[in-house]
Amino acid sequence: MEATTHRAMWEKLDLDLEAHDALLEVLGKFYGDIYLSQNNRLQGAEYLDFVLSEVHGLRIQEIQDAKANGRKVIGSFCVFVPEEITLAADAIHVGLCAGADAGTELAEQLVPRNTCALIKSFIGFKMAKLCPFIESSDMIIGETTCDGKKKAYEAFNEIAPTYVMEVPQTKSPAARDLWKSEVKRYLSEVESLTGQTITAEKLKKGIRIANDKRRALQRLTALRAASPAPISGRDGLLINQISFYDDPIRFTAKVNELCDELEERISAKEGVAPTNTPRLMLSGCPMAVPNWKLPYVVEGSGAVIVGEESCIGTRNSRDLVDESAETLDDMIDAIADRYMKIDCACFTPNEERLDNVTNLAKKLNADGVIHYSLLFCQPYSHESMKINNVLQEAGIPMLSIETDYSMEDVEQLKTRVEAFVETLA
Amino acid sequence: MEATTHRAMWEKLDLDLEAHDALLEVLGKFYGDIYLSQNNRLQGAEYLDFVLSEVHGLRIQEIQDAKANGRKVIGSFCVFVPEEITLAADAIHVGLCAGADAGTELAEQLVPRNTCALIKSFIGFKMAKLCPFIESSDMIIGETTCDGKKKAYEAFNEIAPTYVMEVPQTKSPAARDLWKSEVKRYLSEVESLTGQTITAEKLKKGIRIANDKRRALQRLTALRAASPAPISGRDGLLINQISFYDDPIRFTAKVNELCDELEERISAKEGVAPTNTPRLMLSGCPMAVPNWKLPYVVEGSGAVIVGEESCIGTRNSRDLVDESAETLDDMIDAIADRYMKIDCACFTPNEERLDNVTNLAKKLNADGVIHYSLLFCQPYSHESMKINNVLQEAGIPMLSIETDYSMEDVEQLKTRVEAFVETLA
Repeated sequence: MEATTHRAMWEKLDLDLEAHDALLEVLGKFYGDIYLSQNNRLQGAEYLDFVLSEVHGLRIQEIQDAKANGRKVIGSFCVFVPEEITLAADAIHVGLCAGADAGTELAEQLVPRNTCALIKSFIGFKMAKLCPFIESSDMIIGETTCDGKKKAYEAFNEIAPTYVMEVPQTKSPAARDLWKSEVKRYLSEVESLTGQTITAEKLKKGIRIANDKRRALQRLTALRAASPAPISGRDGLLINQISFYDDPIRFTAKVNELCDELEERISAKEGVAPTNTPRLMLSGCPMAVPNWKLPYVVEGSGAVIVGEESCIGTRNSRDLVDESAETLDDMIDAIADRYMKIDCACFTPNEERLDNVTNLAKKLNADGVIHYSLLFCQPYSHESMKINNVLQEAGIPMLSIETDYSMEDVEQLKTRVEAFVETLA
Repeated sequence: MEATTHRAMWEKLDLDLEAHDALLEVLGKFYGDIYLSQNNRLQGAEYLDFVLSEVHGLRIQEIQDAKANGRKVIGSFCVFVPEEITLAADAIHVGLCAGADAGTELAEQLVPRNTCALIKSFIGFKMAKLCPFIESSDMIIGETTCDGKKKAYEAFNEIAPTYVMEVPQTKSPAARDLWKSEVKRYLSEVESLTGQTITAEKLKKGIRIANDKRRALQRLTALRAASPAPISGRDGLLINQISFYDDPIRFTAKVNELCDELEERISAKEGVAPTNTPRLMLSGCPMAVPNWKLPYVVEGSGAVIVGEESCIGTRNSRDLVDESAETLDDMIDAIADRYMKIDCACFTPNEERLDNVTNLAKKLNADGVIHYSLLFCQPYSHESMKINNVLQEAGIPMLSIETDYSMEDVEQLKTRVEAFVETLA
């Protein structure tokens, strides 16, 4: 990333310039090692490299320009925040920084030590003044998807005012009513923030943009069933990660172009790894940029990753909002219904996820699954045990990994992953 | 406990007799060391000793006799399950075993290692066949108060069918609607189980019995403001613990008798410790029978405990159900409202608890507060940091303790508590 070009902007956003420079340097090196070292990458990967290299640069500049033109920016940490509504008000919907060890010591002044790395990261990024997305946001949205985040937002709210949506914990009719009322409350809040009235026409457009993005990602997911694997898991993950940061219309067009290229590759039976390479699916907690640790370990262990069953993966793209609604209230119902289909581990019971994981692993012709839980993430740690049981019944081997963002356990992870991959070869 | 007398009953309940004998022996010794060794105990403590010694014996016999007469037994792990409704259907409402390390290794087959001791305990008690209350229950009620329990009930349900109530995570009108619908659903479920129709008259009676119990506990709490402290913290906790196991009408009468005795003591300026003994309030996670570890450490360190701000303490007794309602629906509203006042850390925000803790500490003339979090309990660990801030502002020193049920850290806890108590002397 050309740090010097964007310095004035970062300074205006009150980032800690020195620490931010150091962060970008580490990330640049990390990206070079993990991404640029790959063979047989797609031509379309140029888009990924560009977006990533400018994620704190040109993309922030673009957002600042939009703000200067009166558009608002809404930042969130979760796939439950209805992007359709944000887009309907012509606001910008972005994910916030949460994927690297940054400001961890500061974060531990606000949240307990036994908190997952993702939560400590978003608090650390804010406290250490390292996230230009947080600093560009006009509204930050939290949710109640886990105890860790729910309580962390109370502390976070002291340093960055946070609007919290209540996500219910079951899928009962009463829980769905609660969620619909939360969707409506969010819509009102976005109207207040932007000064716009969200009409049926505008919401229809928002729904279409969000669905188009999901359709492009679904197309990508489906193409990854091919053998040999036409794209690396690292690039697959990166596309899903970028979906939270780039402009959705540009992103959709670029991903569709990339899928065209993938189709050519598949026709030519070309891939990123030989046909007999063990194919693994990742499942579990989200991997936010630049948390590429596990994919790097896995694909350095002689396997290829063919899918990500996570919030930064299929959990965010699998379900579409029904586009047939014409009135505003029917559209809100359609949005509420779509989000209630999310198979987040915050729900009890959450049997759908067991089916979804098994079906996806089969559809992607995965030889095995690696279940990934962030240390101290209770919902996904619990489900890891259930997923292991159903995959065992389906004859699909699973390895359960629990880790954080530190690099201390990389060698140990390598040993475990290599041993697992050997059993599949 | 006279083990031999109750053996046939335990065998019928399919307890693991040998392991259960061993458990009772350990608990008997533990109780002797912690309780019977105390000086200046109340006469009314005979009731406590008797109930505790027969908690797996005569009380279970009484419950079995009631079952033989057609009454049903409902077991739960949380103060959110509306006892009023259970009582209205003439059913028996009991707390389930969750206060000792039992069957931990078995439990770790069902729930992650990083789960709090209370959750591992209830699963362990069931798997190791050690809890006669679980085995006597016709219905077991879970709730969604924390990620750990919410997901553990899914696993627990496989070995002990569990009906789960959704407790909302905020106190918004929509969340209150959800909770009211859950209260109604519970009422229907209890009617189905018992074959009884819950009329307004029956529910009024249930409300009165539950409120009378709370009033007796409130009276006890208020009397503990006296100096010198008229009752030990261990006995205060034990009374709160027994409130979940004994018959509520008998319990209320006995606690009121005990309060009469306390009043005499207070008039005579008698107490369990000299007037200058540092007075501490406990705050945080519940301490289920026989989790007396921290009170034992504290009262062995030259301090006296004057109150318990926890679910097995004031969180369970502070709020009454409004008794003025006459129709069934109004009563259900009154019940829903009462439970929505609970300041459980499951709510966000939960500012009431900050006020309640500060006010209670002042009311009880506490010199300091010990905040107690079970290891891996995220909601209370988070709030411990906020409580520390507000107590500091109020000039009340606080010590934060995070621990589990093992005895390994007792010496370390003693050192920390003694150091804290010294600063208060």
